[in-house]
Amino acid sequence: MEIITGGVTAAKGFQAAAAAAEIKYKDRTDMAMIYSEVPCVAAGTFTTNVVKAAPVKWDQQVVYHQPYAQAVICNSGIANACTGAEGFGYCEETAKAAAEALGIPRDSVLVASTGVIGMQLPIDRIANGVKAMAPKLDGSPEAGTEAAKAIMTTDTVKKEAAVQIEIGGKTVTIGGMCKGSGMIHPNMCTMLGFVTTDAKISKEMLQEALSEDVKDTYNMVSVDGDTSTNDTVLLLANGMAENPEITEKGEDYETFKKALNYINTQLARKIAGDGEGATALFEVKIIGAESKEQAVTLSKSVVTSSLTKAAIYGHDANWGRILCAMGYSGAQFDPEKVDLYFESRAGKIKIIENGVSTGYSEEEATKILSENEVTAIADIKMGGFTATAWGCDLTYDYIKINADYRS
Amino acid sequence: MEIITGGVTAAKGFQAAAAAAEIKYKDRTDMAMIYSEVPCVAAGTFTTNVVKAAPVKWDQQVVYHQPYAQAVICNSGIANACTGAEGFGYCEETAKAAAEALGIPRDSVLVASTGVIGMQLPIDRIANGVKAMAPKLDGSPEAGTEAAKAIMTTDTVKKEAAVQIEIGGKTVTIGGMCKGSGMIHPNMCTMLGFVTTDAKISKEMLQEALSEDVKDTYNMVSVDGDTSTNDTVLLLANGMAENPEITEKGEDYETFKKALNYINTQLARKIAGDGEGATALFEVKIIGAESKEQAVTLSKSVVTSSLTKAAIYGHDANWGRILCAMGYSGAQFDPEKVDLYFESRAGKIKIIENGVSTGYSEEEATKILSENEVTAIADIKMGGFTATAWGCDLTYDYIKINADYRS
Repeated sequence: MEIITGGVTAAKGFQAAAAAAEIKYKDRTDMAMIYSEVPCVAAGTFTTNVVKAAPVKWDQQVVYHQPYAQAVICNSGIANACTGAEGFGYCEETAKAAAEALGIPRDSVLVASTGVIGMQLPIDRIANGVKAMAPKLDGSPEAGTEAAKAIMTTDTVKKEAAVQIEIGGKTVTIGGMCKGSGMIHPNMCTMLGFVTTDAKISKEMLQEALSEDVKDTYNMVSVDGDTSTNDTVLLLANGMAENPEITEKGEDYETFKKALNYINTQLARKIAGDGEGATALFEVKIIGAESKEQAVTLSKSVVTSSLTKAAIYGHDANWGRILCAMGYSGAQFDPEKVDLYFESRAGKIKIIENGVSTGYSEEEATKILSENEVTAIADIKMGGFTATAWGCDLTYDYIKINADYRS
Repeated sequence: MEIITGGVTAAKGFQAAAAAAEIKYKDRTDMAMIYSEVPCVAAGTFTTNVVKAAPVKWDQQVVYHQPYAQAVICNSGIANACTGAEGFGYCEETAKAAAEALGIPRDSVLVASTGVIGMQLPIDRIANGVKAMAPKLDGSPEAGTEAAKAIMTTDTVKKEAAVQIEIGGKTVTIGGMCKGSGMIHPNMCTMLGFVTTDAKISKEMLQEALSEDVKDTYNMVSVDGDTSTNDTVLLLANGMAENPEITEKGEDYETFKKALNYINTQLARKIAGDGEGATALFEVKIIGAESKEQAVTLSKSVVTSSLTKAAIYGHDANWGRILCAMGYSGAQFDPEKVDLYFESRAGKIKIIENGVSTGYSEEEATKILSENEVTAIADIKMGGFTATAWGCDLTYDYIKINADYRS
């Protein structure tokens, strides 16, 4: 597996473009288009929130009931959530505008929106944005980056990843971009992720690979415990790598899945590290669990704890809050058997052993916790299962961003 | 039912005292003693956290296995949680010191601690504090208030309530105090609450009344989603009102329970309104639910949502976040049937009707949300059940308090 630079245009045959459609923001791009030269099989995973945004409902129709998809239109600024029948109609009109501009079927166009809830989309500006993007489509890495920038909301950095693998003697590329910073919590996935690949793979195996992988990647991210109405990850495969088609589990499938996991993990970590107001990526590993489920429950509970997140912001080795968050997670374990470590580029330190303090150096712990990527590792000594969750610290800027997001 | 001033010393025969024992704080009181002139039947509800503090374990022994309790010793500053066998030993030593000073059995002494996790109690100072308090015991309202102040940690105000009812021609008084500001989340109860009454009531009925009532009061409060290791509510009844003993359900029991509910609701609301860094009490009412459980799940989810809490801080009628939090709660409902209102002393406004915006005035909504007690009411139009949860806004000061609580 070779890590390469790039994003959604890294794989063969994929192009992208961006436009400034003035949907809510001025003086920046706010629409992105992803296009494949040939039809793709598509897989998707969507929010489990009862309140589903209109684009989620549209995309579920396309992903579940259409054989192919060929383009994605995404806007930032307005989420098109809680917008009723009118909002769903705008998804249809967006797809229609893209279908006309690109000369493809309307039902092969996926749509996605992110931003404020409850406002209707200015459909004329959306349609103009679509028309402006179609002739600008471009397969260069720069075009992919422009698309990744256009979908940002409170994100502070654009998020891309790409990788190459070899399947059946052919080079297969997977690339992706995502956005997400607030309203992020483990459940299905995290805001918007778009992954493209030139792998030749059946629709069934593509969906299976994605559905399996989101559990260990996007679903393990929490910024603030709020599961969005718009969460969507779309995976498009156009087959242009000309590898022997992957139609069942086996070596080729595993190679593909490993590469997909790399992309999704990178994108998920980027979302966590760029959580609203965050100064640090906070990684929580549970080891020695008696089941995967137990490890997942414990790691998510810690990464979601406001008190723990505030302590990470303060570079404070306040381990009691971590043990407390494990305790109320709903998972059973023996607190008096837990060992806890903090780790970062600055070193690793054992904080508690069998549930009580080791008498560690607070100075050393603070030094380790002052890095911009810090890890807490809890060994519960019950078995061989592990899980890793990603979040971020809770800071003044989270409040600043969210106390008046709409204005 | 008559609301009176007072707290834990309001009921006949109850005395209190406070002391400055320098457990962690300097220049303030940090220990409280509650004492009844005669033995009491005792009821208690305790944290459901797997990680239980030593005093919780001690009190469970007393409440569940001893016929009577006669005193409570509480300290602030150190929580005596995650302290192993050594920590449990300090509970025993505290009870022993109180038993000697008060001339009562060791197993009739309840203990409680609140503060930082993982540190051992300075048992010599605790014992000295106990000795200093015993001769100062006093049944005045002022003594009750001194006790309420001594148990504060990040609380900004002391929390007391008292009420009188008539049972069988006798005046019965119930009074209480509590503390709680951070590490607070609906699950059993919220930090420390002490309620005293001179009612004559059997231990069984007392426990039943308390266990039932915490579900609608303390368990409906969330400040930050973190369920503490120390949550404890103790209810002591010494029978000195000389009412006909309540030994079964009926009119007298209902009268008692209604008064107890008033005390617990007042104390619970005080905790929510004094959440760490809070500028407003945030009340969430779900009406029109098809079951109590559904109403509870929905109201708790909204009151816990960081994004919603930050919006309340910003006086921003960001209703999408409320609908979103209802959506990921796990409860089923039809988002397109929901009506949502905001209400406060400044008025009441309908924000959404059948899931979409009413086109309300943002200016008016902001005016309503600028009060220090604000309510969101969601009507889901499925049935006749309701639930109310209490929380607070999420502010810069929450971060300030928690980023470096230990130093």
